[in-house]
Amino acid sequence: MIVKERVDRILSCLESGKGTMEGQSAEQLLICDPYAIFYLTGKLITPGERFLGLLLQKGRTPILYVNELFRFDKDLGVVKKYYSDTDDVTKLVSPDLDPALPLAVDKTMAARFLLPLMEAGAASFFLNGSLAVDLTRSVKDEQEKAALRKASLVNDAAMDEFKKLIREGVTELEVADQMLAIYKKLGASGYSFDPIVAFGDNAADPHHSPDNTVLKEGDAVLFDVGCVVDNYCSDMTRTFYYKKYPSKEVERVYDLVRRANEEAEAMIKPGVPICSVDRKARDIISEGGYGPDFTHRLGHFIGLQDHEFGDVSTTNFRLEEEGIAHSVEPGIYHPGIAGVRIEDLIIVTKDGCEVLNHYPKDIEVIG
Amino acid sequence: MIVKERVDRILSCLESGKGTMEGQSAEQLLICDPYAIFYLTGKLITPGERFLGLLLQKGRTPILYVNELFRFDKDLGVVKKYYSDTDDVTKLVSPDLDPALPLAVDKTMAARFLLPLMEAGAASFFLNGSLAVDLTRSVKDEQEKAALRKASLVNDAAMDEFKKLIREGVTELEVADQMLAIYKKLGASGYSFDPIVAFGDNAADPHHSPDNTVLKEGDAVLFDVGCVVDNYCSDMTRTFYYKKYPSKEVERVYDLVRRANEEAEAMIKPGVPICSVDRKARDIISEGGYGPDFTHRLGHFIGLQDHEFGDVSTTNFRLEEEGIAHSVEPGIYHPGIAGVRIEDLIIVTKDGCEVLNHYPKDIEVIG
Repeated sequence: MIVKERVDRILSCLESGKGTMEGQSAEQLLICDPYAIFYLTGKLITPGERFLGLLLQKGRTPILYVNELFRFDKDLGVVKKYYSDTDDVTKLVSPDLDPALPLAVDKTMAARFLLPLMEAGAASFFLNGSLAVDLTRSVKDEQEKAALRKASLVNDAAMDEFKKLIREGVTELEVADQMLAIYKKLGASGYSFDPIVAFGDNAADPHHSPDNTVLKEGDAVLFDVGCVVDNYCSDMTRTFYYKKYPSKEVERVYDLVRRANEEAEAMIKPGVPICSVDRKARDIISEGGYGPDFTHRLGHFIGLQDHEFGDVSTTNFRLEEEGIAHSVEPGIYHPGIAGVRIEDLIIVTKDGCEVLNHYPKDIEVIG
Repeated sequence: MIVKERVDRILSCLESGKGTMEGQSAEQLLICDPYAIFYLTGKLITPGERFLGLLLQKGRTPILYVNELFRFDKDLGVVKKYYSDTDDVTKLVSPDLDPALPLAVDKTMAARFLLPLMEAGAASFFLNGSLAVDLTRSVKDEQEKAALRKASLVNDAAMDEFKKLIREGVTELEVADQMLAIYKKLGASGYSFDPIVAFGDNAADPHHSPDNTVLKEGDAVLFDVGCVVDNYCSDMTRTFYYKKYPSKEVERVYDLVRRANEEAEAMIKPGVPICSVDRKARDIISEGGYGPDFTHRLGHFIGLQDHEFGDVSTTNFRLEEEGIAHSVEPGIYHPGIAGVRIEDLIIVTKDGCEVLNHYPKDIEVIG
């Protein structure tokens, strides 16, 4: 069912000019992204290469354009307009647009639909209006916060189970292959992203994919994992050690990453520039001598999708705001020495932030 | 390494005017689709939401625009231009374009990249030029044919293994969950699409996803399955019967589908309108009284992706051409009576077609 409050937030953001890349105001917005449409209607339609659109206009009932292959009965509080594979999308949409006004379109709208609409003069000009949706989606309402909390609780419980898969001679892939079933048993509907399982030096590659590497004594064991519960995502990383407490140097790396994670989380509250949160973590790691080995942004926004619009990086000058949800995931990657990442999700509260993950961050020897 | 012969075919198709949706000629084409770029360079880069582009221009070396996150050493015979997340894509690409000429763009090019390029006046006007790529990709060269054959041979062998998973009390999901390992053992790199396993009345739903349905005596067992070998896809459907030979009516349905499949295949040769192949299969099923129960097109083109541009339907007036590869997959779906689909892949030859699947099509009772 259409969430009127979300539609209103988007339209007012659009009207203010903050909602378009061009900084210009608009009163009509054509959304194509299936997750954005799900966010507004509660209905997920994944049309592949076919056109899907939700037209929002000030003071009018939203119109949903759907290929008849995805016909459904449920009343969503929108006008449904079906079309077939032989229909012309331009002729379908144009009559609903005011050609004297600009049209804001989705940043993902494909050229094959956008070019003919321009050719037909369906609007006075065209803008990229995705910011209105992205900024609105980035501030979670109570229902969304509850789902995010639930997904992270399941993730905390899953981490405990994943540890038990670790035994002599096991490979990363053998461990990864068992994770989905564990998530499902705990109530998740699936992964929020393909799990990262990294042993030993593989932990020093932040984008490692599980392979046939065999676990050996003294290895780091890094899990970067997440699941979907009630349509919302979790995402957490912990780094363990197999059978042997790490060396002094690795311990120092671990403590740097942990401090970066915890001090970044401690400073988050409304009004703090997001870039300064990244800066805080980066400074701690740099002062410890590992600056060049923290090779990625501190975090990303999260919600219905694991990576949503908005990053926690040195170039994001937006201020933290109550309801924003993002990851805090510093790491140090130095092949031959250590690979450590520690990641939690947080939601910004009225005067601080709520850390959604409760799994401990002490150095833990397993197996 | 850039395949010059494929680039030349695309540019000449573009110049002829056949390669744009607008029917207009162009000399510069900006390709964004990762698989189209793989087809031309042998390098698969999946940039997610980031910009990826391959610029083809008459008489010039192709230029590949890649985010530095996907930096690679290999020489592909193209000019590589890296950009970072803080760079402006419009400023990156514009200097390479001739602003006095039209620019053909990929049908999938996202509005967030296309709109600023238009705003900057980077070309005289913009066209949808994907047809040039799609038409070229639809006619396979010898290397592609060899890979398609190999993928279908693996699929034939896999079908034999899948049958052995069928036993009393097994569920569709339990069977489907074991398929990937079998494909990998046979040399495939993965699925070409999620397998369909349908028992009993579920076979009468052409888009059924494997669920917890338990197999029982007398059930139809439909497998619609495919894998990827050497980057090319296979896709085959067979319908079996568990423990009991089907009733007279089901046997009649099966024979209609089989005849539709075999007679359609028998008529394929260069010069035959693709729509008439669909028509042949549809007529056979209609004359048998099941016309309304054949609810989809007869087939789809296939290659690097399971579904490529081009369908075998009543509205495709293109002629069959040597090197085209597509599926032939008639079906009858009548809940309560029967669900049967029989699918092969074919490649059009000089004077007929080569059927890539060799798995028998006789009614087979298993278990």
